[in-house]
Amino acid sequence: MGENVDNEIIEHHVDEEMEKRRTTSHASSFIESLTPFEREGHSSTQSSHRLLAYSDALISIIATVMILPVAHTKVEDNEELKESLQALLSTKIAVYLMTFLIVSVAWAAHIRLFQVIERIDDCLALLNLACMMLITFLPYTFSLMATFPEYILGILLFCACVIVIGLIQSVIVVYGFSRPFLLNDQIQISENQVFYKHHILKVIMRVPIMCFFASIFSFIFFQLSYVILAVVIFLPYITESLKWCRSKAIGQVEETPDSVLFYSYRPNEPLTKERVEAFSDGVYAIVATLLILDICEDNVPTPSVVQKKYGGSLIAALQDYGPEYLAYFGSFATVGLLWFVHHSLFLHVTKTTRFMGLLNTLSLAFVGGLPLAYTLTHEFPRNSRNELEAIQISCVIIFFAGVFQLAIWVAALFNERETLHPYVRYGGRDHAFMFAKLALYPCVALGTFFVTCVLSRFSASIFHLMQVTVPFAFLLLRLLVRGGLALLRLVFCPDRSDQRSTLEDEEEEARMPFNALVT
Amino acid sequence: MGENVDNEIIEHHVDEEMEKRRTTSHASSFIESLTPFEREGHSSTQSSHRLLAYSDALISIIATVMILPVAHTKVEDNEELKESLQALLSTKIAVYLMTFLIVSVAWAAHIRLFQVIERIDDCLALLNLACMMLITFLPYTFSLMATFPEYILGILLFCACVIVIGLIQSVIVVYGFSRPFLLNDQIQISENQVFYKHHILKVIMRVPIMCFFASIFSFIFFQLSYVILAVVIFLPYITESLKWCRSKAIGQVEETPDSVLFYSYRPNEPLTKERVEAFSDGVYAIVATLLILDICEDNVPTPSVVQKKYGGSLIAALQDYGPEYLAYFGSFATVGLLWFVHHSLFLHVTKTTRFMGLLNTLSLAFVGGLPLAYTLTHEFPRNSRNELEAIQISCVIIFFAGVFQLAIWVAALFNERETLHPYVRYGGRDHAFMFAKLALYPCVALGTFFVTCVLSRFSASIFHLMQVTVPFAFLLLRLLVRGGLALLRLVFCPDRSDQRSTLEDEEEEARMPFNALVT
Repeated sequence: MGENVDNEIIEHHVDEEMEKRRTTSHASSFIESLTPFEREGHSSTQSSHRLLAYSDALISIIATVMILPVAHTKVEDNEELKESLQALLSTKIAVYLMTFLIVSVAWAAHIRLFQVIERIDDCLALLNLACMMLITFLPYTFSLMATFPEYILGILLFCACVIVIGLIQSVIVVYGFSRPFLLNDQIQISENQVFYKHHILKVIMRVPIMCFFASIFSFIFFQLSYVILAVVIFLPYITESLKWCRSKAIGQVEETPDSVLFYSYRPNEPLTKERVEAFSDGVYAIVATLLILDICEDNVPTPSVVQKKYGGSLIAALQDYGPEYLAYFGSFATVGLLWFVHHSLFLHVTKTTRFMGLLNTLSLAFVGGLPLAYTLTHEFPRNSRNELEAIQISCVIIFFAGVFQLAIWVAALFNERETLHPYVRYGGRDHAFMFAKLALYPCVALGTFFVTCVLSRFSASIFHLMQVTVPFAFLLLRLLVRGGLALLRLVFCPDRSDQRSTLEDEEEEARMPFNALVT
Repeated sequence: MGENVDNEIIEHHVDEEMEKRRTTSHASSFIESLTPFEREGHSSTQSSHRLLAYSDALISIIATVMILPVAHTKVEDNEELKESLQALLSTKIAVYLMTFLIVSVAWAAHIRLFQVIERIDDCLALLNLACMMLITFLPYTFSLMATFPEYILGILLFCACVIVIGLIQSVIVVYGFSRPFLLNDQIQISENQVFYKHHILKVIMRVPIMCFFASIFSFIFFQLSYVILAVVIFLPYITESLKWCRSKAIGQVEETPDSVLFYSYRPNEPLTKERVEAFSDGVYAIVATLLILDICEDNVPTPSVVQKKYGGSLIAALQDYGPEYLAYFGSFATVGLLWFVHHSLFLHVTKTTRFMGLLNTLSLAFVGGLPLAYTLTHEFPRNSRNELEAIQISCVIIFFAGVFQLAIWVAALFNERETLHPYVRYGGRDHAFMFAKLALYPCVALGTFFVTCVLSRFSASIFHLMQVTVPFAFLLLRLLVRGGLALLRLVFCPDRSDQRSTLEDEEEEARMPFNALVT
């Protein structure tokens, strides 16, 4: 314990020291800015930290926006959910998922750009805001494309946005290289600045140029435009997945000398863990609160309605909204707990590979679907066929959101020396606990799905019971895992556990990986 | 320049070093957790950093939610805006502002709690999520209170939420003190832990106990409940403003020994700058994107409508939505630029006092009103009386959002040695530039307001012209300030500027405060 405190205090001191140094370096950069070198009046360089945090927040909100038109699609009570769902599935859900992927691609490009340009000034901050404004407009142009696939206006608007974003980013790069003190330290001291600049511009302009061709082809043969756009959006994901599979199949590929040359701007460089966390936090936060936005707007009855319809009884009026509240609390709890699992996982992740980033994006896309699921569950009369299907859809969405989180961990385990802290690696002392945490939601969702298939009459009760018990399951998870492990040991090696108490045994098991690490 | 690079590299090294230490301390805390002291299985302590970031995001979204019912209030075209605005103003805007204040109070209490409990484990993370869920429900209970002031149900629900939040926070405190390694370092090593615990519990339970009495009085004489609740909400703001005014009037008050005793949990302790920034970022991000939420949902025409109403011309159909797009880009640009000003200001702020935090909250509350303003501007026919008034309301909202930002700076200037970096202090080299940045929006809004009063026929054109020119004004601001200062000098001391070039003069002026600092 004493050592722990010492460590903490040292850490704290280092923190303070760093803070001081930061202040000093900040102040000195202002003094520096008066040297002849940077006399042009753009001397107020700033750390880009807060700019990036704000961009993360904006982009994560925008990525989840397109779930709203899906969630608010009114399903008629008398028609079967399945039919209207087919209409939904065909366009709106596809639009939502595609938007999510497009915006994630734009976000990744944005991050890589600001890995090169590490400091900003007012001009860059304003250019970045202009860029953000166009990125927030992408979902709308995309939904135009999806609603009117035969009109070329959607394609043109989308391509125009992407091209302008590309141009603004090029301006940012050119501006950054004209003021080298804004750049990454490694580029700043290198002698190949011009080479770097051309390379980065080439990478940035690749997508806008493809979009330019797509917009030209749209006048001639618009189907081809869609093919080009699909290539633009999916190619990075597909190549990444293929690369990962190949590297697993034929062993680790050597780093090419090319990537060493461009170590400060590899388009393949994984996103930093902090940015992935910030983006995920934004998505989880907006998804958790999407339903309260609706509730605050729609579910406050007017005094006249309460007077006429409910004879002045406010409680009776509010009871009509009961299912909505239940849906809100249910969705908040589910999103909150999925965030909690994500938080626990990323606490033990030291580095995110690109493949893990892709799995994280897919998990977030399903998390974004949760408000839809919970809106569906409360829209139908009790024990109708629609209600059952709505509940099963919720289970499927929760299942996939959880399974992709689990997949992040599995993918991390393949490179565990690089990506994970020792204690959650295979055989580590928190390995089983982490696995239980990640597996809880997929298992529960799958279980609920099959139970509702069998006991379809009690589907709503089962679903609500699941919602109530899961938080407690998380609270008791450590005890459950411990019990489970003890039981396993009792079954497989009963002779050992006879001798010692379970607690000691547990501890020995826990210490083992550290001994293994030391030796 | 060389020194600058050196500094950066040192900073970078310190960063890395800290990272290593963190990892080490993290790993060692896991080993530590195997000592007998913490054997109960709750060993996975974690830094609360990401938990707080997520809470900030949730709370900032919730704080701005209540603007939606205001913004979506349909104003009939034939009735005068003024009358419907009176109905609006009387309840919905009041509800919005009150909600914003209540949620800010809850946020501040939440921060202070996690200044005591600096590390978390799974149990605390789950308790905090439960707490968040109830905080997100507060706006709804409050709007029930406002819509049905004579029913006690609203009061009871609100009080119940507050009491449960208080109880959860107490559980968090008790839990934290039962595992001292989770606490703030200073409390961890102090011998007065029990004393601290009781003091903190007392501070936390103050508001819930008042709410408990309010809920009891609601059965007897419900007006009294509202008085109690108003005291709860406004008292911290009022006492803080009074204290600040008094301290300015009679000079700096000495720190009481009491506050030295409780240095780690002073309810009067200012919020850290980082948390204020994170909260502000969240509000700016959600406000900037609120309008695109509406546009994505409502402004995609269906194919059948385009076929029937516009003869298959998608462009004609979209032209009808033109004003909405303009409103979106206008509001995004305004919010983005206000964020930019806020960002520039907080870059130079070293510490936020409580009074500055209050001014920041007020500024954010007006920023949250911007979507309302921009929705109003595009809802009325050109050159109608309503349009003029909507534009003037927009100007007023922008004016106040900007003026409160300016007020933050003015308040900071009163304690400039503590709260500001040297270069923006009075007489510093960026002082005039910062002032121009902060004054730009209030001046432009005020100017537009008066010009539209005179030239009411061109109000819309003037307003749009303002929107287009302001971003460029920010880009050119440094040049403008430089020119303005040169001009001032030319007018007041023409003999000096004859001798030297303006540039040299400028530089001399810029260096002056640093010389003053050295001597």
